Amino acid sequence: MAFELADAHVTIVGLGLMGGSLAGALRGRCRQITGVVRKAESARAALDQGLVDRCTTDLEEGLRQAHVVILAMPVRAILQQLPILGPLLPEGCLLMDLGSTKAQIVAEMAKLPPHVQPLGAHPMCGKETSGLQAADPALYRGRTFILCPLPRTSPESLALGESLARAVGAHPLILEPERQDFLVGTVSHLPYLLACSLVSTADATTSADPAAWEIVAGGFRDTSRVAGSDVTMMLDILLTNRAKVLKAVGAYQAQLQSLADLLQAGDEEGLRARLAAIRQTRIEMFP
Amino acid sequence: MAFELADAHVTIVGLGLMGGSLAGALRGRCRQITGVVRKAESARAALDQGLVDRCTTDLEEGLRQAHVVILAMPVRAILQQLPILGPLLPEGCLLMDLGSTKAQIVAEMAKLPPHVQPLGAHPMCGKETSGLQAADPALYRGRTFILCPLPRTSPESLALGESLARAVGAHPLILEPERQDFLVGTVSHLPYLLACSLVSTADATTSADPAAWEIVAGGFRDTSRVAGSDVTMMLDILLTNRAKVLKAVGAYQAQLQSLADLLQAGDEEGLRARLAAIRQTRIEMFP
Repeated sequence: MAFELADAHVTIVGLGLMGGSLAGALRGRCRQITGVVRKAESARAALDQGLVDRCTTDLEEGLRQAHVVILAMPVRAILQQLPILGPLLPEGCLLMDLGSTKAQIVAEMAKLPPHVQPLGAHPMCGKETSGLQAADPALYRGRTFILCPLPRTSPESLALGESLARAVGAHPLILEPERQDFLVGTVSHLPYLLACSLVSTADATTSADPAAWEIVAGGFRDTSRVAGSDVTMMLDILLTNRAKVLKAVGAYQAQLQSLADLLQAGDEEGLRARLAAIRQTRIEMFP
Repeated sequence: MAFELADAHVTIVGLGLMGGSLAGALRGRCRQITGVVRKAESARAALDQGLVDRCTTDLEEGLRQAHVVILAMPVRAILQQLPILGPLLPEGCLLMDLGSTKAQIVAEMAKLPPHVQPLGAHPMCGKETSGLQAADPALYRGRTFILCPLPRTSPESLALGESLARAVGAHPLILEPERQDFLVGTVSHLPYLLACSLVSTADATTSADPAAWEIVAGGFRDTSRVAGSDVTMMLDILLTNRAKVLKAVGAYQAQLQSLADLLQAGDEEGLRARLAAIRQTRIEMFP
């Protein structure tokens, strides 16, 4: 299949923040965008928001003419849907997902019938808000869009996935699933647990003092922001990337403890050297 | 001393981010703003930026006519300056500081000569940038401005400090020094160490992989933002609030470990309940 995105019927299953935003960003850049949702009211809302050309609650109907199908659901919903969807997909259909963990999904994709072209994907964007009403066609702009091809994924299908990523303003980045799960375990899933632990600590130790709520400033707000993320989505991510997230937590605890040890010892020069090096790294990460 | 801010000569010692911003916010709301800086070029820059009415590198000259003196330096610089400044201050002068930890500063303020009116202060604002060039008169707007009066602080001096906080758009909040140090240890100093540990972990475990730098997304950026804070300022804060910060780190480590334990055990319902409660708390903190 050497297929241009502009000629493709694209179907997005699930129109939450990620799916709805992707639909809005792709609309006009492919022949037709179809949304598949569970509730009739979501279908009406997606049409009213101008995110899709058509929207249906009938999965089979939504898949029938599709050249590209994108699963925009929590990770474990994707894992459940893959065996059901496979037989319903048209010949040569490119099947992508947007789940944040990739090893389990790609392993499940490998079991799809041979007429389907699977391609794991994980765009590095998101907000602490969720749902269709938060959808924003600019969500993907400037972001990295990770792609995890399988051995069976054809170069043409991968190229179509890459052009889709570029069409929404993102940069495609090809990674093996295990490597992506390790990296996002540290740079994305770990920050979520840290933010949650910070909120939990403040709640446990200071919330009895009403002044605590008045002095919470920008530092706390930013450090804790992702603790507001959708719980079902995050639970799926943590449970399907458990070993790598736990390893990242262990590495993190050792780093924090080493800073606490320097402080405990009053090792001013040691602490200054560590904090200065970390500050420099942070500046290099976000120039 | 029943004195109005509008009639006061205010001298700010140190024109970095905090002092420069305060000067800019107070200018026009008091009779005169004087800056005291170490370098002649900083004096010129502060005048060029329109932050002060006059600026000097001569401390005695800067203090001579002052009704209000504000020390806007790192915490340990304040601790060093207090014994030197005391004898130089005019009769009845209100002496404030902007340091982030208060117990040690207020204890040092208690030793000032009796003709001085001391008032510890800590405005809850800041940026990961620092220095005069980052000064912003809007920095204090809408923020909480903690005030720690001493037993010897007169009601009139406290009222003047409160009116100064309001003049820059902040909300005064009166706290005892130990209570302030405990609360900010958790909601401000702890987030700094967490952010540093996150940057340090990512650097130690993933930086060998160039892809890591491409997939760092908004969650990591926000959770790590305060790791870019000025190191001298933060080192002073940590070393003068050591016991409370270490206690906060301990409480935090326990919270993080309890989340990791639920994940390790695959206790989905337990983890969901914890994460949902934390999300709700975060939403209540920042509605």
